[in-house]
Amino acid sequence: METVSLNRSHGGVQGVYRHPSSATGTAMTFSVFVPDHAPGTRLPVVWFLSGLTCTHANVTEKGEYRAACAELGLIFVAPDTSPRGDGVADVPEYDFGQGAGFYVDATETPWSAHFHMRSYIEQDLPALIAAEFPADMARQGITGHSMGGHGALTIGLRNPDRFRSISAFAPIVAPSQVPWGRKALAGYLGDDPAAWRAHDAVALIEDGARVGELLVDQGDSDPFLAEQLRPELLAAACRDAGIALTLRMQPGYDHSYYGISTFMADHLRWHAARLG
Amino acid sequence: METVSLNRSHGGVQGVYRHPSSATGTAMTFSVFVPDHAPGTRLPVVWFLSGLTCTHANVTEKGEYRAACAELGLIFVAPDTSPRGDGVADVPEYDFGQGAGFYVDATETPWSAHFHMRSYIEQDLPALIAAEFPADMARQGITGHSMGGHGALTIGLRNPDRFRSISAFAPIVAPSQVPWGRKALAGYLGDDPAAWRAHDAVALIEDGARVGELLVDQGDSDPFLAEQLRPELLAAACRDAGIALTLRMQPGYDHSYYGISTFMADHLRWHAARLG
Repeated sequence: METVSLNRSHGGVQGVYRHPSSATGTAMTFSVFVPDHAPGTRLPVVWFLSGLTCTHANVTEKGEYRAACAELGLIFVAPDTSPRGDGVADVPEYDFGQGAGFYVDATETPWSAHFHMRSYIEQDLPALIAAEFPADMARQGITGHSMGGHGALTIGLRNPDRFRSISAFAPIVAPSQVPWGRKALAGYLGDDPAAWRAHDAVALIEDGARVGELLVDQGDSDPFLAEQLRPELLAAACRDAGIALTLRMQPGYDHSYYGISTFMADHLRWHAARLG
Repeated sequence: METVSLNRSHGGVQGVYRHPSSATGTAMTFSVFVPDHAPGTRLPVVWFLSGLTCTHANVTEKGEYRAACAELGLIFVAPDTSPRGDGVADVPEYDFGQGAGFYVDATETPWSAHFHMRSYIEQDLPALIAAEFPADMARQGITGHSMGGHGALTIGLRNPDRFRSISAFAPIVAPSQVPWGRKALAGYLGDDPAAWRAHDAVALIEDGARVGELLVDQGDSDPFLAEQLRPELLAAACRDAGIALTLRMQPGYDHSYYGISTFMADHLRWHAARLG
C-alpha cells in the first residue's frame, strides 16, 4: 500500500492510498479518515460507496463527514467506483465502464477482466483496511450515494453479519427495473435477469434477505427520482418483509453533494449509535 | 445578474451567479449561500476571499461553511480571485495574473485594463449583494484564505466601519516582505513600495489602521508558513498597535481546505457573535 497524501483535518488524518488489487488486477485508489484515538484502540468503520462518474475524491472533498467522524470516533473509508487505467475496458458513456462499476463481478467480456467491484469491496479492500488501519472489523456500517447507495444496500443485505448498520443517500434501489441498472447489469452480467437479483436491493429482499432496519434520505427535487431511483419500490419491499425502513423525502434537495453533505452527519450519528 | 445554479443545502440555498462587473469590465462569477429566514428579514453577511489559483468554487465545494451559516443565520459570499476570460491578460505562473488578483486595483499595463479586484470587492459586488440578496449591509464580516486572507485583512483594516469582524486562515500578512506579495504588488502597482502599503496588513497597521481585534488560524505544518505567510509579523504589528490578535497555531495542519474546513465553523461563530 502506497500513501498518496496525508492531511490533518478535523482532529484526525485524511489519507489517500493506492494499492494493487488482486480483485480487479489494477492499482486502486481509496481514502480513509482516521480520527485521533488512544494508542491501541480500534474504531468502528463506516464505508461510503460513491456514485456514477465519481472516484474516492468526490466524497472526500465534498462529503463533510470529518467533523462528525471525529466527534463520533468513526473511521470513514471511501473506495473508487471501478478499476481504471489504460489497460482497462471503457466506453464513452458516463453510466457504464470506468467510473460505473456498479459493485458487481462482471461475467461478460471485456468487463470480466477487471470489473470485480463486488469482490473488491466485499473481500479485497476490507482485508487491507483490517491490516493497515486501527479498524474494529466487528463494527462496520455501510452507506453510499446513488449507484453507491445501490452498492451499500446490496452489499449490506448480502452480508448482514458483517454490517451492523446500512444507510443510503438517493440510492438506486431496484436496478433491474430502471434504465441505469438494466444497462449495467446486462452489460456486466449478461441478459438473464436471474443473474441480476443478487445485485438488486429490492430483489434481494423479495428473495429473503433480511436486516432489522435501513435509513434512506432522498431529495424530492432529485432529477433522477422518478426514472432511476424509485424509493417507493424499496418501501414496498421493506413493508412486505417487515424491515424497518426510515425513508426521508427531503423537500427541495437534489442529487448533488449539496444534499449528501446536508444529511451526512445525521447518517453517521445513526451508524455510530448502532456500532457502539 | 444571471443565476448559474441553485442547490438546496443545509437548510438554505447555495447559489452561483454571474454578472457584468463595472469594476473589472468582465463577467464575474461568485457564490452566495442564504439560509432559510423569515420573509422580510435581512441577515448578516460574511465575505470569504479565496487564495491563489482558486475561483468561488473551491470554498463553495470544500469549505464546509453551510451547516454553521444555517445555524447562525449568516449569508456567505464567495467571490472569484481575479477577472478571467480570453480578453484578460494572463501569464503561465500560478501566482500572478488570472486566479491571482491580490485584491488590488492594478496601475501597471496590461493589468490595469481589468485587474481591479479592490474596487470589485469594496464597491461593485457589495452593491449587487445589497440589491439582490436579503443582506443586512450594516452587519458585515470578512475572512479569507492565504492571498484571500491578505485581502480580508487589508480590506477589513481599510474599512473598519463596514466590517465589524475580520478573520483569516493562513493569511499573507505582509506581502511587501515575501516573494508572492512582492511579485504581485510590483507587477500590479509598480516598483515603488510606497504604493504597496495600502495593500499590506502589517504596513497598514504600522501606518495607523486600527480595529479592535483579529482572529487568525495558521497550521504549523503549512509549507508556506516561513517564507510567504509569516504570522509573527502580524503579531508584532498588532502588539505594537494594541490590536487584540488571536493567533492560533494549529499543530499538524497544512495550507489546504482540509485545514480551512476544520476551523470554518469556529470562525463563523466568532463572526456571528460580533455581527449580532
